[in-house]
Amino acid sequence: MEYRFSDKLAALKPSAIREIFKSLTDPSIIAFAAGNPAADSFPVAEMAEISDEIYRTMPVKALQYGTTEGYLPLRQAIAARQREKFGIGRLPEDGLGFSDSTIIVSGGNQGIELACKVFCNEGDAVIAEDPSFIGALNAFRSNGAVTLGVPLLADGIDPAALEELLKREKRAKLLYLIPTFQNPAGITSTEENRRKVYALAAKYGIMILEDNPYGELRFAGDDVPTYKSMDTEGIVIYCSSFSKILSSGMRVGYVTAPEEVIQKLVVAKQVEDVHTNMFFQILVHKYMTERDFEGHIAEVRSIYRRKCGIMMDALDRYLPRELTFTRPQGGLFVWCTLPACIDMNEFVKEALARKVAVVPGSAFTPVAGAPCNSVRLSYSTATDDQIVTGARILGEVAEDLMKRA
Amino acid sequence: MEYRFSDKLAALKPSAIREIFKSLTDPSIIAFAAGNPAADSFPVAEMAEISDEIYRTMPVKALQYGTTEGYLPLRQAIAARQREKFGIGRLPEDGLGFSDSTIIVSGGNQGIELACKVFCNEGDAVIAEDPSFIGALNAFRSNGAVTLGVPLLADGIDPAALEELLKREKRAKLLYLIPTFQNPAGITSTEENRRKVYALAAKYGIMILEDNPYGELRFAGDDVPTYKSMDTEGIVIYCSSFSKILSSGMRVGYVTAPEEVIQKLVVAKQVEDVHTNMFFQILVHKYMTERDFEGHIAEVRSIYRRKCGIMMDALDRYLPRELTFTRPQGGLFVWCTLPACIDMNEFVKEALARKVAVVPGSAFTPVAGAPCNSVRLSYSTATDDQIVTGARILGEVAEDLMKRA
Repeated sequence: MEYRFSDKLAALKPSAIREIFKSLTDPSIIAFAAGNPAADSFPVAEMAEISDEIYRTMPVKALQYGTTEGYLPLRQAIAARQREKFGIGRLPEDGLGFSDSTIIVSGGNQGIELACKVFCNEGDAVIAEDPSFIGALNAFRSNGAVTLGVPLLADGIDPAALEELLKREKRAKLLYLIPTFQNPAGITSTEENRRKVYALAAKYGIMILEDNPYGELRFAGDDVPTYKSMDTEGIVIYCSSFSKILSSGMRVGYVTAPEEVIQKLVVAKQVEDVHTNMFFQILVHKYMTERDFEGHIAEVRSIYRRKCGIMMDALDRYLPRELTFTRPQGGLFVWCTLPACIDMNEFVKEALARKVAVVPGSAFTPVAGAPCNSVRLSYSTATDDQIVTGARILGEVAEDLMKRA
Repeated sequence: MEYRFSDKLAALKPSAIREIFKSLTDPSIIAFAAGNPAADSFPVAEMAEISDEIYRTMPVKALQYGTTEGYLPLRQAIAARQREKFGIGRLPEDGLGFSDSTIIVSGGNQGIELACKVFCNEGDAVIAEDPSFIGALNAFRSNGAVTLGVPLLADGIDPAALEELLKREKRAKLLYLIPTFQNPAGITSTEENRRKVYALAAKYGIMILEDNPYGELRFAGDDVPTYKSMDTEGIVIYCSSFSKILSSGMRVGYVTAPEEVIQKLVVAKQVEDVHTNMFFQILVHKYMTERDFEGHIAEVRSIYRRKCGIMMDALDRYLPRELTFTRPQGGLFVWCTLPACIDMNEFVKEALARKVAVVPGSAFTPVAGAPCNSVRLSYSTATDDQIVTGARILGEVAEDLMKRA
């Protein structure tokens, strides 16, 4: 049988970085390529206690079908916390002509994929920061959407280039942004940048899809308001998740968006997985409301503060000055840019040969084949010693390749 | 903001039966409308024990990101069991020019949705039994596919009508079938029917999407070979799940298909939810391999044997002879056809007014608005007493409406 796959899937190859991810199971390799949260960020003992309690007190609720929107007490707890803490979510009484609602999804990525399905016909376009998160770019492509890039500068996506593109590109339906501790670049856009970009989106009538999985992981500097907190027109779809603060393996995330948009997302989610794992929805709700949730997040932050600090010190010490890198205030990622005389693919290959895995930046370009001479490093899963050793090896690789050039 | 939704989602309304499902939370209503498994089919105590063991012995594996394909030991356990028990899954050494692989999905519905995404461009068609499962029909529509129906007869889908349609419909990419204990009709197609239909699919080069969530729930008669067990050309994608035998709320299902198809399904799944909840994948594996899995399934079967028997007896006793109904040999559903003098919508409405919820058959037609004068009944969640009372009330409703006619 010769299979006739759909055009959108025929074109979508398994991501180039999957091969590198497979190398992560080799314990002799230093895993700067991972996007995994640190294993010691999972509150195992407390999750075990709560699980035991769920089996004792509400097993049928936890094991039976639930509603697509998600477990109502969890939806309410998330909505209340993010309204109070981050100014996210409009109420009917705000009198803006729309109100927001929050639903549970099976990880933030599902929210992103659903938003594309709900807004994009095949051939429509999604605009993203260049570079951007490969999982989201492929989610857009899997729905037949075209991905377009706008350069990500030090203070956020380039507003002038964005406006040029919005003027020209009539089929652009979504503007996908990771404004805080961006993946892969580790950049947090400024409030001024965000206000400009929000105004452009409102002017050109494009929806902002705000992806904020790392927002809680700030370990330096001050919070910057989210796009969603600025949303007075009902044009922001906000995705976040518990993957980086409780457990990634449980697949529990959430989306906050105007009620009319949420209704469509629910219809689309219902036919994908009916609803998100009920047991862990209940577990997250109990963790949020009966345990020291804020204290736990503070602990997770301190893990990454330490790890990031170690990586910054080691990169400062070992990398030749021709290599530059971002200094994140939170999240998991560092973006390291090579001098023109080093070929990125050669650098990645040589580093892997010396047992350090990094991700080639070319994996993150919205337009395939766009030039990129950077690599993504993560400090989340390597041990403190490995971070130092890995940085030293990357420095040696860079020096060797520069000598050869 | 006036939202410009994608064509496929703009047309997709929340299913008409959702309103009825909402009534299921009212404990005074007899829930013949539910598709939920019986609550006493969940092995709560054993699941609690296994969960405790997972937290003690492998918490990081269970809470960290996993691979999109699923937890390898679970994939292997499923593949081995279904090969041994049901003849499902081809190996390279079978020499058929293809081999099958099994992946884990977040419930059987995800497998169905992914198959459509992988094979259908917008405007392509999926052929289904008429009536068919609404969740699957909407999954196809959510990907922009057109759904077409072929009558489901007492021994399976009508092969003559199917061939007519296959000749005519060049954009048909998938043939979606629920051959065993069909939802909603409760019909199991015969082996003879399946062999004819398989031959037609091979002749016209269309993929069979076989949905088999109820196959383990046979409580009378003999097993009929699945389409997948007949698959010598690599044209069958087989979806099943643990929802009806362990827990529906955990969302763990699986797909077995030729390796080349599986690779595309994995790419599509990766961008939807990255992977299925890891904790419950491990739990299911432990349940399958360390507990009396087959004994538990036998117990679940005996629950439905009893409930179905009670419903059959009560319908025989209380329904006027002008109403006919199917006599399932397994699964959860009975299809009850009304005489022409009773309007289906009026019957559903009047039954609900008297506190019995049934699903209007019109919800299950692949072509919206196609004529249908049947309703779906389920015996899975009502108590034994409720089944008898509910049947009596339905009989009274039918008699009253026939008198009025």
